[in-house]
Amino acid sequence: MANSKYEYVKAFEQPDLLLPNTWIVVRIDGRGFHKFSAKYAFEKPNDRRALDLMNAAAKAVMSELPDIVIAYGISDEYSKLTTTIVSTFTAHFVLLWSSYFPELPLSPPLPSFDGRAVLYPSVQNLRDYMSWRQVDCHINNLYNTTFWALIQMGGLDAKDAEKELAGSVAADKNEILFSRFNINYNNEPDMYKKGSVVFRDYELVEPGSVSEVVDEDSAKTMEQLELSKTQEEKDRKRRAKAIITVQHVDIIKDEFWERRPWLLSNKPGKIPKEP
Amino acid sequence: MANSKYEYVKAFEQPDLLLPNTWIVVRIDGRGFHKFSAKYAFEKPNDRRALDLMNAAAKAVMSELPDIVIAYGISDEYSKLTTTIVSTFTAHFVLLWSSYFPELPLSPPLPSFDGRAVLYPSVQNLRDYMSWRQVDCHINNLYNTTFWALIQMGGLDAKDAEKELAGSVAADKNEILFSRFNINYNNEPDMYKKGSVVFRDYELVEPGSVSEVVDEDSAKTMEQLELSKTQEEKDRKRRAKAIITVQHVDIIKDEFWERRPWLLSNKPGKIPKEP
Amino acid sequence: MANSKYEYVKAFEQPDLLLPNTWIVVRIDGRGFHKFSAKYAFEKPNDRRALDLMNAAAKAVMSELPDIVIAYGISDEYSKLTTTIVSTFTAHFVLLWSSYFPELPLSPPLPSFDGRAVLYPSVQNLRDYMSWRQVDCHINNLYNTTFWALIQMGGLDAKDAEKELAGSVAADKNEILFSRFNINYNNEPDMYKKGSVVFRDYELVEPGSVSEVVDEDSAKTMEQLELSKTQEEKDRKRRAKAIITVQHVDIIKDEFWERRPWLLSNKPGKIPKEP
Amino acid sequence: MANSKYEYVKAFEQPDLLLPNTWIVVRIDGRGFHKFSAKYAFEKPNDRRALDLMNAAAKAVMSELPDIVIAYGISDEYSKLTTTIVSTFTAHFVLLWSSYFPELPLSPPLPSFDGRAVLYPSVQNLRDYMSWRQVDCHINNLYNTTFWALIQMGGLDAKDAEKELAGSVAADKNEILFSRFNINYNNEPDMYKKGSVVFRDYELVEPGSVSEVVDEDSAKTMEQLELSKTQEEKDRKRRAKAIITVQHVDIIKDEFWERRPWLLSNKPGKIPKEP
Repeated sequence: MANSKYEYVKAFEQPDLLLPNTWIVVRIDGRGFHKFSAKYAFEKPNDRRALDLMNAAAKAVMSELPDIVIAYGISDEYSKLTTTIVSTFTAHFVLLWSSYFPELPLSPPLPSFDGRAVLYPSVQNLRDYMSWRQVDCHINNLYNTTFWALIQMGGLDAKDAEKELAGSVAADKNEILFSRFNINYNNEPDMYKKGSVVFRDYELVEPGSVSEVVDEDSAKTMEQLELSKTQEEKDRKRRAKAIITVQHVDIIKDEFWERRPWLLSNKPGKIPKEP
Repeated sequence: MANSKYEYVKAFEQPDLLLPNTWIVVRIDGRGFHKFSAKYAFEKPNDRRALDLMNAAAKAVMSELPDIVIAYGISDEYSKLTTTIVSTFTAHFVLLWSSYFPELPLSPPLPSFDGRAVLYPSVQNLRDYMSWRQVDCHINNLYNTTFWALIQMGGLDAKDAEKELAGSVAADKNEILFSRFNINYNNEPDMYKKGSVVFRDYELVEPGSVSEVVDEDSAKTMEQLELSKTQEEKDRKRRAKAIITVQHVDIIKDEFWERRPWLLSNKPGKIPKEP
Repeated sequence: MANSKYEYVKAFEQPDLLLPNTWIVVRIDGRGFHKFSAKYAFEKPNDRRALDLMNAAAKAVMSELPDIVIAYGISDEYSKLTTTIVSTFTAHFVLLWSSYFPELPLSPPLPSFDGRAVLYPSVQNLRDYMSWRQVDCHINNLYNTTFWALIQMGGLDAKDAEKELAGSVAADKNEILFSRFNINYNNEPDMYKKGSVVFRDYELVEPGSVSEVVDEDSAKTMEQLELSKTQEEKDRKRRAKAIITVQHVDIIKDEFWERRPWLLSNKPGKIPKEP
Repeated sequence: MANSKYEYVKAFEQPDLLLPNTWIVVRIDGRGFHKFSAKYAFEKPNDRRALDLMNAAAKAVMSELPDIVIAYGISDEYSKLTTTIVSTFTAHFVLLWSSYFPELPLSPPLPSFDGRAVLYPSVQNLRDYMSWRQVDCHINNLYNTTFWALIQMGGLDAKDAEKELAGSVAADKNEILFSRFNINYNNEPDMYKKGSVVFRDYELVEPGSVSEVVDEDSAKTMEQLELSKTQEEKDRKRRAKAIITVQHVDIIKDEFWERRPWLLSNKPGKIPKEP
């Protein structure tokens, strides 16, 4: 509508497009959450309420943005996609806060998040990305569990705990936990050891029963994809009916993906019959 | 800390740097706010509470992120800066909501925002950007005021109001408002006509009393900038003491900028003495 | 080695990385070649010498840059890769000029080229890109052949020829060529109808004899790729021995790719025994 | 003209725009010139013919691409601009080769170049960039001159020469050159010590006689720039008449820029009267 001599400044806006036909991973990080978790006295090494809150916010984001588990996604504007997801996550995090920390009202500086989108061209790259995060989760949690056991149960200060753990491998940490604190790391909650995966839940598939799982779309031209818009509309409705679940399972092995072909095929699965 | 064969996926992360020594404008847009404003029955053409809420969120962002009025900013990661500002804005918007809409609790889908950063190399480009927005604000508000007067007071439906205004210029709209609805557009609130500018408030400067306002930093090498870190620390403290103000004034003319040299020089002004 | 207060300017260099694990297509265009082909009176619609020169330059580039048929390429700096290929192409084009146009010495402005890299994530995308170019070649050449026949043999001027062809489909153009000028388009040289493909030539493979052609690398982690460096060295030597060929064949159908599995697998084929 | 189901692949082309209103520096580097200079036995530490050839190619590029000394340039496609300049440079380098190395015909691998564009927002940034390059030139040339004197006149091998120079400052190198080899570094050719600047030559201006040199354009809106197209046409003609000169002078001090206001103002100077 508007029209003025100042409009030339639009020319400074740089396009920032996502490469089509790739897996878009948007990674969200809490900003200054070290300080934030201190302010609200989060439990160490893991605060169940805080993790549940994160998961609840993630579920809410998935339910508001149904395209989020998107296979071979259609191009979009980079910063717009990222800021939308971060903003939606923040909104739910702030609003859900009081359900998880009823006794602790939020006050400025408020929790906030940053995010960035990374593109992965192949299913293998995407799965390796997910595997990397889960391996990271395991390594960090084993370290943190041992570190805080040394402090909370062993009476060490942070510096000594750090020194004690310097150069130790997984077996050493398992041993410290078991012999000194009688903690069997294997019995720790899966949520802490494996992290949380949030996805739409359909009927699991028998391994081997699906001929070819991945990448149907990539074999189609955009034109064919265009033609299948009615199908897409049906898919969208089926997706909206699915329950969003939070699980703490192994996502490195093939089984997780083979039994949930909808995750990589971008085709919604079968809605389970109600019991 | 972690180290696994999956870490190669980090190579897919593309750097996304802001060009140094430019003015960074982060523009935030409400997502689907047409629908959102309908859901909560915002008043037309302007809802004072909603605007006040936006301003309050903007003030809160500036107070949490003191570098925001940044002259010739130091390079930063594009998406990180943008998502941080959008996330902080969202957090305050959601938390402040109940102060402005006490009778209307938020429910999903929650309000969310997207954002993007644009770089402007010169002061002139930056001022033209600001002028463009204010001209836009004026043009849109005059249109909307007339459009809704035709509907709310003139009994037209949206389609007829649109037809009535097609091809009209500013004078036509002023005339419609005055002759048919006895509205003098000049008497409309400045907030609607001029928008809101949020900035740190220092003592105004007499025009002409400051020799050279703009762009001191650009004449320095980064090395010199480096040396002045102590000064920067002092500036940061002065800035933290300043009151953040919301005003509805002309930002196109030179006067606004000449009397507030701190906006373009990135040097905090003088804190006004308390009366 | 050098070290001065001016070095901060390095911070303005923006990284410009290619996304790993994608097919990199570098497209080279002659700059102002309309004017250039007029200056040297290229034959219309196709100048055999000019096309041969382009192919010779392309062959020379492939022989100097052995990584050029690169499957799931390793990341590199965008502009560096592109400018290197364009520069090498230009150097050969200029030096080979006199072999193809012995009677026409080059004079300024010299021929020059621009280029850009585009990334395609999947084999299907890459093949569609190649198909798109070949379809384009066909459509353009049929048009140009008819257009110039109307001018050179039919006595029309450019404007009338253009008008005559406006709205015509392929069959119409074939008909014009045949009925008016006794040209059977099918008998035109394949070079003009199908374009030129330049690639390393190995022993053709019987269709069906290779189990799985594409994309072996994408199933490997970068770590595994790392381990296979000795293999890569061997491959590089085999590749250097291969003859670079220029052919004018159908690259849309599967056959071309199935019989030359080395093109998409990034594994050199078998060097044919000398007869 | 063409139109096929494969055209969707165009969606993979990423825009790559230069930020408007900045100084665009395109840096060109010889690829593998260490090897190349060995192949053609360039003289050490400086080969006059090779440098003259580079300068001749640079002059030719400036004469073919008249926008090259561009102040506050209008946006263009990043890789297109860069590859065009690199390609034009390569074409002239290859064609001019035989004038500078008549006894040494070129053979594959041919010389080639890569390039990249960097954007500098302010005049100060641009001048600092130029200063950085000239300081670099001085430091490198002093080192190389001493290094090769130690080898060619002092009988050292490369390793010993390197060791001898490790940790030495400028004064040490001057001393080595003077006391051992009777070389006064100050008397070395300016071309080697200061590098070569290529620019259009107009009448020099008395320092102080021009009120305000820089950046006129930045104070204009794009609209105003638009209006001055006739002026631009005149400027273009004046520019085409100017002689392109190669000089070896100090470009760090203000004098160079103050006496040649056309370099930073993007307004052509006065063509000197012929004597």
